[in-house]
Amino acid sequence: MTIEPVDESPSTGHATRVAEATVTETVLDSLRSTPDPRLRELLSGLVRHLHAFVRESRLTQEEWERAVAFLTETGQQCTDTRQEFILLSDVLGLSSLVETLGGPGGPTATEPTVLGPFHLTESPRRELGADIDLLGSGDGEPCVVSGRVVAADGTPLPGARLDVWQADTHGYYDVQQPGVQPSGNGRGLFTADAEGRFWFRSCVPSPYPIPVDGPVGSLLAATARHPYRPAHIHFIASADGHAPVTTHLFVAGSPYLASDAVFAVKHSLVRDFTETDDPVRAREFGVPNPFRHATFDLVLAPETSA
Amino acid sequence: MTIEPVDESPSTGHATRVAEATVTETVLDSLRSTPDPRLRELLSGLVRHLHAFVRESRLTQEEWERAVAFLTETGQQCTDTRQEFILLSDVLGLSSLVETLGGPGGPTATEPTVLGPFHLTESPRRELGADIDLLGSGDGEPCVVSGRVVAADGTPLPGARLDVWQADTHGYYDVQQPGVQPSGNGRGLFTADAEGRFWFRSCVPSPYPIPVDGPVGSLLAATARHPYRPAHIHFIASADGHAPVTTHLFVAGSPYLASDAVFAVKHSLVRDFTETDDPVRAREFGVPNPFRHATFDLVLAPETSA
Repeated sequence: MTIEPVDESPSTGHATRVAEATVTETVLDSLRSTPDPRLRELLSGLVRHLHAFVRESRLTQEEWERAVAFLTETGQQCTDTRQEFILLSDVLGLSSLVETLGGPGGPTATEPTVLGPFHLTESPRRELGADIDLLGSGDGEPCVVSGRVVAADGTPLPGARLDVWQADTHGYYDVQQPGVQPSGNGRGLFTADAEGRFWFRSCVPSPYPIPVDGPVGSLLAATARHPYRPAHIHFIASADGHAPVTTHLFVAGSPYLASDAVFAVKHSLVRDFTETDDPVRAREFGVPNPFRHATFDLVLAPETSA
Repeated sequence: MTIEPVDESPSTGHATRVAEATVTETVLDSLRSTPDPRLRELLSGLVRHLHAFVRESRLTQEEWERAVAFLTETGQQCTDTRQEFILLSDVLGLSSLVETLGGPGGPTATEPTVLGPFHLTESPRRELGADIDLLGSGDGEPCVVSGRVVAADGTPLPGARLDVWQADTHGYYDVQQPGVQPSGNGRGLFTADAEGRFWFRSCVPSPYPIPVDGPVGSLLAATARHPYRPAHIHFIASADGHAPVTTHLFVAGSPYLASDAVFAVKHSLVRDFTETDDPVRAREFGVPNPFRHATFDLVLAPETSA
């Protein structure tokens, strides 16, 4: 390899002393030539806060080594079907904070919440009314979810897109159980009708623990925290000219609504899955009567020119 | 899977609203039952600082996704012979800060500096005077490094242990070039003699770039920083009853002493590799005359009962 001096004479020989008092400034100086101003701002802020954390906590060499090992294991746990770094961000409340800062776009817009680690595959396109429970809900409760996608002023958004995903009645996503669940189970990509309406069939979701067999599970155990999430269905709703929203529909009355392991619950997103005894509507939806029915309207803010 | 309510009644149904103003407190609350008080302190401090960073920078969802991808790639770059997370910690100055906070143990003790990402294999035991340059320095300059390991008051520490590692004259460590360099090239585990003295042969190290073919290299490129480190030899010195020190011996006059990519240079660790024309000493050391000679005493602080 050719060694070429870059920013100093080889004969300088005047060492910069790195000391506790000055090392943070030296690192911040090294970032001053970052061409992208936003990247410079983000890295400088990260360095300031991480250095402040190390100073305040007097982090030891041994603790640093354990942190390096933990982060390495977290990265190595990731696969095409598992995202342990999102899970780590989730259990530290960072994902919830980022989503919360990002929206909603206005007082009436649907509140966002975390993406979670299971949005890894493209959901299959399905017709309105389709059943996303491909296993036929053998031991789950059939349900219908319906609603409208509208603008902040209530105007329907025809052709709005809805990406929907949920765990099965036992609390597992399809990507967690290849060979047990068919790919695309619990998932669907729907297009709202001319009046912004959507409806699909599924089984009522269950509460479930996030995966605990990796480093994030060890972290929860070490902090005496439970790994459970309240029952929910994930949604990403989008429409031309509007800001998309990543959110959940939570099942009212579910355990863990008050202690979600990933801090994602917002009261405005909780809905009753109402026991419905209505043979006519059951026939319309194609479900046995009685059935459980949740309604969830998604209100999108106008696109900002960020 | 069995779902058991843990800390709330399933019938509570009263959702905790996670909002921008309260999410950080909610996460800190969730850590309050951590049994190990030091782990609780560290995680609470980390959460406070990371949340403050996200709030200050108004980190967007897209930036969060890029950060997750970067950390995932960093973890996946790690192997038995490569530690990309240590490299990341190094280029952000965190490793240097942690080492600097940890020591030295007193005004006379040798200053510590970063471990670096290449201390991955056990160094082979070698006799005093051995040549750690197993390739015979075909195109490097032969040198001798000698010194003493002593206590803070200057008392020699007989039988002190020295773990030494360095890159070859082309700037690569053995673990970076399996099949090209023999395993253990540039490495040695020495035991000081009855007077605390040590000496070994090697080639004068060269400046070199840290590995730039992974995410940390991309980070350096995006910040317009060069990846070079000034020429150095790594040391870990230890002796019973004393605090070990992880440090470097830097080559005086090397390029990059004032702009080390990992912020590890301390003036007290820089030494001349003096051109020495002394046939008698050359014969004693078993090197051709003239040769280059660096002396480096390592002063260990007493062990603290932390």
